[in-house]
Amino acid sequence: MSDQAKIVTGLGKAELHRILVRGYDLTEELLGKITFSQMTCLMLLGRLPTAGETRMTDALLTILVEHGLVSSAVAARLTYHTAPEAIQGAVAAAILGAGSVHLGSSEWSAKMLVEALPRETKEADLDAIAASVVTRYAERKQRLPGIGHRTHAEGDPRADKLFQIARESQVYGRYCDLLQRIAGTAEKRHGRRLPVNVTGAIAATALDMGVPWQITKAFAMIGRTLGAIAHISEEMRNPMARNIDAAIKSALVYELDEKK
Amino acid sequence: MSDQAKIVTGLGKAELHRILVRGYDLTEELLGKITFSQMTCLMLLGRLPTAGETRMTDALLTILVEHGLVSSAVAARLTYHTAPEAIQGAVAAAILGAGSVHLGSSEWSAKMLVEALPRETKEADLDAIAASVVTRYAERKQRLPGIGHRTHAEGDPRADKLFQIARESQVYGRYCDLLQRIAGTAEKRHGRRLPVNVTGAIAATALDMGVPWQITKAFAMIGRTLGAIAHISEEMRNPMARNIDAAIKSALVYELDEKK
Amino acid sequence: MSDQAKIVTGLGKAELHRILVRGYDLTEELLGKITFSQMTCLMLLGRLPTAGETRMTDALLTILVEHGLVSSAVAARLTYHTAPEAIQGAVAAAILGAGSVHLGSSEWSAKMLVEALPRETKEADLDAIAASVVTRYAERKQRLPGIGHRTHAEGDPRADKLFQIARESQVYGRYCDLLQRIAGTAEKRHGRRLPVNVTGAIAATALDMGVPWQITKAFAMIGRTLGAIAHISEEMRNPMARNIDAAIKSALVYELDEKK
Amino acid sequence: MSDQAKIVTGLGKAELHRILVRGYDLTEELLGKITFSQMTCLMLLGRLPTAGETRMTDALLTILVEHGLVSSAVAARLTYHTAPEAIQGAVAAAILGAGSVHLGSSEWSAKMLVEALPRETKEADLDAIAASVVTRYAERKQRLPGIGHRTHAEGDPRADKLFQIARESQVYGRYCDLLQRIAGTAEKRHGRRLPVNVTGAIAATALDMGVPWQITKAFAMIGRTLGAIAHISEEMRNPMARNIDAAIKSALVYELDEKK
Repeated sequence: MSDQAKIVTGLGKAELHRILVRGYDLTEELLGKITFSQMTCLMLLGRLPTAGETRMTDALLTILVEHGLVSSAVAARLTYHTAPEAIQGAVAAAILGAGSVHLGSSEWSAKMLVEALPRETKEADLDAIAASVVTRYAERKQRLPGIGHRTHAEGDPRADKLFQIARESQVYGRYCDLLQRIAGTAEKRHGRRLPVNVTGAIAATALDMGVPWQITKAFAMIGRTLGAIAHISEEMRNPMARNIDAAIKSALVYELDEKK
Repeated sequence: MSDQAKIVTGLGKAELHRILVRGYDLTEELLGKITFSQMTCLMLLGRLPTAGETRMTDALLTILVEHGLVSSAVAARLTYHTAPEAIQGAVAAAILGAGSVHLGSSEWSAKMLVEALPRETKEADLDAIAASVVTRYAERKQRLPGIGHRTHAEGDPRADKLFQIARESQVYGRYCDLLQRIAGTAEKRHGRRLPVNVTGAIAATALDMGVPWQITKAFAMIGRTLGAIAHISEEMRNPMARNIDAAIKSALVYELDEKK
Repeated sequence: MSDQAKIVTGLGKAELHRILVRGYDLTEELLGKITFSQMTCLMLLGRLPTAGETRMTDALLTILVEHGLVSSAVAARLTYHTAPEAIQGAVAAAILGAGSVHLGSSEWSAKMLVEALPRETKEADLDAIAASVVTRYAERKQRLPGIGHRTHAEGDPRADKLFQIARESQVYGRYCDLLQRIAGTAEKRHGRRLPVNVTGAIAATALDMGVPWQITKAFAMIGRTLGAIAHISEEMRNPMARNIDAAIKSALVYELDEKK
Repeated sequence: MSDQAKIVTGLGKAELHRILVRGYDLTEELLGKITFSQMTCLMLLGRLPTAGETRMTDALLTILVEHGLVSSAVAARLTYHTAPEAIQGAVAAAILGAGSVHLGSSEWSAKMLVEALPRETKEADLDAIAASVVTRYAERKQRLPGIGHRTHAEGDPRADKLFQIARESQVYGRYCDLLQRIAGTAEKRHGRRLPVNVTGAIAATALDMGVPWQITKAFAMIGRTLGAIAHISEEMRNPMARNIDAAIKSALVYELDEKK
């Protein structure tokens, strides 16, 4: 087989008597010594995190685990109800909802930030960049991703908390700073409260730790995997799928077309 | 709507200004204060864990994250390659492999243990139970789930490590004990090394923390969600899907049927 | 690479200028000449079907396409709503519900029939087999899969229709016959109407065409793929996901645990 | 519940004794009387098709069923191997690859056509539209979706076949015409063969039947559902997953990072 056809990975290697993860011996050096949040950084950043980054990662993994009976929990429960032989299928159904609208929307905020301020940029005038971003989005009549909230006009307490943890843990860097300046500029420009929302705060803090913008929704997907399993486990003990069906049926109206 | 049709959940509640998770205020009481492994216990056990259980949970979440280019990583990479617009789809493809054969097989070991020793049992003669389990499986000519390993005749170092952590963290209880007695009894009965494998160790330690047997593969699914994202992220930087296709093609033989 | 490592397939071969499907040239011999139901038989049975089998297959593929706003349609719509960038994800969410309880339950009926009457059996006394099946399930206190219906005590008109088509199309064979005798025997034994239901009729007619019992839910999965796409397409034109959320919320009760 | 919260569907209605599909009684009017391709049109177009449209739909559903051991078949086989308890999971893994790059790419071609020639346009100068499309894509340095092929410089025989069937069946309309004019214009402009490929032909013929551009990959997803089931069924009889693993391993190189 020629060299071009080689399949190269730098993540891990399973040998007969040991497993290497980014150069560390899993059993000897990692198990029992690191937390899952440290493992998350090792896998996604290629390095073990600082204590501050570890605390930040724990917050990012925790924040989107549970939000009541949202769409992904409903999908997990309904799928489990009809396919109880395979809870991985019900978990997958929940994960599939982590798209561009709700769970995965931090991606768009992170992309905006990295496009406005590429990682390799040395010196940057954050106020000027913020002003230019706000202008560009206003011209295109686009909503600023990660900013503003339908129901939390006064600010999303979860976003504030993430920024607080970011500051306490020395993670707060220029992407957090830039996003807050964008929000501030937009507020002045549009004359109304436009606070950073939880989506934006996840994006900015993840970027400041070095997470690529394309995978800032990693934390949400891991968190929702846990959330989905918890809903499936509750559904096992206390089945609600039929009641969900009944609630939907009670609001259902058929508007069948005439035959054509 | 009648009372029967109510949809009841005890996991969480999203209010306008706060989110409750099993009675805790997410922003005020959990974020920045607990680790993701503690959140995992809160969701799956309904209570915050001890320090020992937290360390155990971190080990359980970490142990199956990365194992080289296994099936689930291949599925994630191939799916990402043809559907890069939706990394949640590639993650879901990886999760779907967490079935009864590889990733999810701790379920069968856990089921065996709970059926042999129901949780409500007060006093139990573990040696007698172990003997009866080994006899029953031998009669049915069934392999003991969680015991023995094709390639690790001398014992899987990951299993030993999990038991070590379980002892150090006071998690080691009667399910760990029972599984090791079953392995010991089977070794004597069959006259060859039959150590507990990693699947069995995950099952027994999870049971000793109080995880229901039906969801002992939770840790593997959460870990593999992280692993899949890491492989997708590497695939973004260094695409290997075409090389995977080429490697498969190089071994491919068509044995087309005659037309019928 | 050694012979053992060869990957063998008899399904199809993509060459530079032609694609072979089970020995047929796709462009020259199949496209424009066969229906999708004939292609279904070619893929699953390894041969082109008779005219009768084609009609039967069309009925099997059509029967489970649409059933109102069932779980799989709800999962598809909710997933599309939060992840509109990838309709394949919403379709996958719908497919994942094709499990052992609802959509995929024909599998259990088919398994019962093949275990009672293996394909290689030459001569068989169907009445004796039916009696023995009914006895065995009664002893184990198991429900006969594919027989009886919660809401259609008088018989499911869809099952009757499938048997009618099977007879008209010469597909009706000993598996259909056996299942109807099992139902008849059970009715006499238990003294109440126990008609074959749609699940059972799908299983029996598929078996009589030669479909392996393990994949008798193929027809349901293909049909539901179409059904899911139709629901997603309607959701694009007339979004209902928020209303589904609202209907669920209106029935929701939180019973948060006390803190522990 | 207020009127806004009503959930409206025009697709189907499951009553106690009958199922209505777009106004037709499933058992009385559809089963045994229509083909699955006619059902596909009824669901996606809201009307029963002409004989020509039926033949076209059968070709569109058939054309992408089988293409050898492509990514989606590999994903299905690997997933089945580790999770044999749930073939719907393996089918879902295959479907998840129907994304923007391979299987689902007809979407982009269809979008280009509808944006250039909105459905409501009465009279249109197709040559002028084609010229403007080619110019716009050249200016943006974008590849024309649905045109050109890496390996079929002389034209993809499957595309030619679809257009032939479209002509014979009176489906060929202005979207087919426009796409072929775009290809012709691009060939002259760029001085090399740029034939319509199979993706483009699917998009154009589907549009000419009235399929919304957003769901032109419906045919591919339905076809691949069948293809995936056939691969899973072959995998059951003749397991190849370990050989696929071995082929990948034989090309694998670990380039572990230094510890950091």
